[in-house]
Amino acid sequence: MMEIQEIEEILQQKQNPHRYRHTIGVRYTSICLAMRYGEDLTRASYAGLLHDCAKHMSNEKLLAKCCEHHLTVSEVEEKNPFLLHGRVGAWLAEHKYGITDPEILGAIEWHTTGRPDMTLLEKIVFTADYIEPGRDQAPNLVELRRLAFTDIDQAVCAILKQTLDYLRDQGGEIDPATEVTYNYYLQKCAENTEG
Amino acid sequence: MMEIQEIEEILQQKQNPHRYRHTIGVRYTSICLAMRYGEDLTRASYAGLLHDCAKHMSNEKLLAKCCEHHLTVSEVEEKNPFLLHGRVGAWLAEHKYGITDPEILGAIEWHTTGRPDMTLLEKIVFTADYIEPGRDQAPNLVELRRLAFTDIDQAVCAILKQTLDYLRDQGGEIDPATEVTYNYYLQKCAENTEG
Repeated sequence: MMEIQEIEEILQQKQNPHRYRHTIGVRYTSICLAMRYGEDLTRASYAGLLHDCAKHMSNEKLLAKCCEHHLTVSEVEEKNPFLLHGRVGAWLAEHKYGITDPEILGAIEWHTTGRPDMTLLEKIVFTADYIEPGRDQAPNLVELRRLAFTDIDQAVCAILKQTLDYLRDQGGEIDPATEVTYNYYLQKCAENTEG
Repeated sequence: MMEIQEIEEILQQKQNPHRYRHTIGVRYTSICLAMRYGEDLTRASYAGLLHDCAKHMSNEKLLAKCCEHHLTVSEVEEKNPFLLHGRVGAWLAEHKYGITDPEILGAIEWHTTGRPDMTLLEKIVFTADYIEPGRDQAPNLVELRRLAFTDIDQAVCAILKQTLDYLRDQGGEIDPATEVTYNYYLQKCAENTEG
């Protein structure tokens, strides 16, 4: 596994300053969520740092990487290849940066849409990506950030709802995986509230 | 007020890589604690970033700065001038980095010993300094880090206790301010538990 500082240097070269600042924001926010929920800090650090390691790639390159390495591409992903940066990022994390921990790879793969029944680390990176200090466009950030550190399932649910609302408002294409994840966490949070 | 990135560049020049990494760790941990407790993120960012802005100074320079700018120096500080890096740091934050917010200046001044009845921002920087991701020597860090994000008064109390225990074990000189602060938070937390 490559050292954190070596990965930082590579990403600082590849990413523009705005994206690199986001990357570092997600790394530290993931670590702080790990402090709160008892996840391993080193895993959170690697997963947060590498979550967007394929985001600088063009649509053509993302599709080519998937083809070359036999990674699955859904219909919606074929039309919106930027959705593939998580899957290609997980592949790069393993084969370029030497990550073998499947939970770190899962957190990179699923950070955009989430998935039902995420691991704690997957929820941490998914949430950190939305609330990191550099974000300032999304609504309700004060409440979402508080929620992230008090009830991460509720935070995941609220982030998915806002993402779907935003995509519907903008007429953007919705990855069915986001809807499936939202329905799962909506039900989970309702059960927790009832319980 | 100087821009965050400009201050980062100055501190990266002045501090060795280890201390600069600590500085950035405290900055982001302060921001995440601010997310949790509803403090302003920009204030937390400045206070965390600048908390050690005078720590690279020699004992002679710290004493000279206090003399030059008429800052108070207690008896224990005269014998252990490194204890002055918070007070001199607050002076530098105001006069070199253009910070006028008294709460940011207070958080820099009091980050080493704390003080009774700290503001939220003071508690945030005091706590972040002890738990930031680069720390790995202190005992009970897993529990302290969780506590920092669930009950910051209890975290402040536990950090003060560990600091006093450590200084007593090592035979190090204890700043009476640390003891006064500990007694205050011990009583406050006992009252909260009773209540």
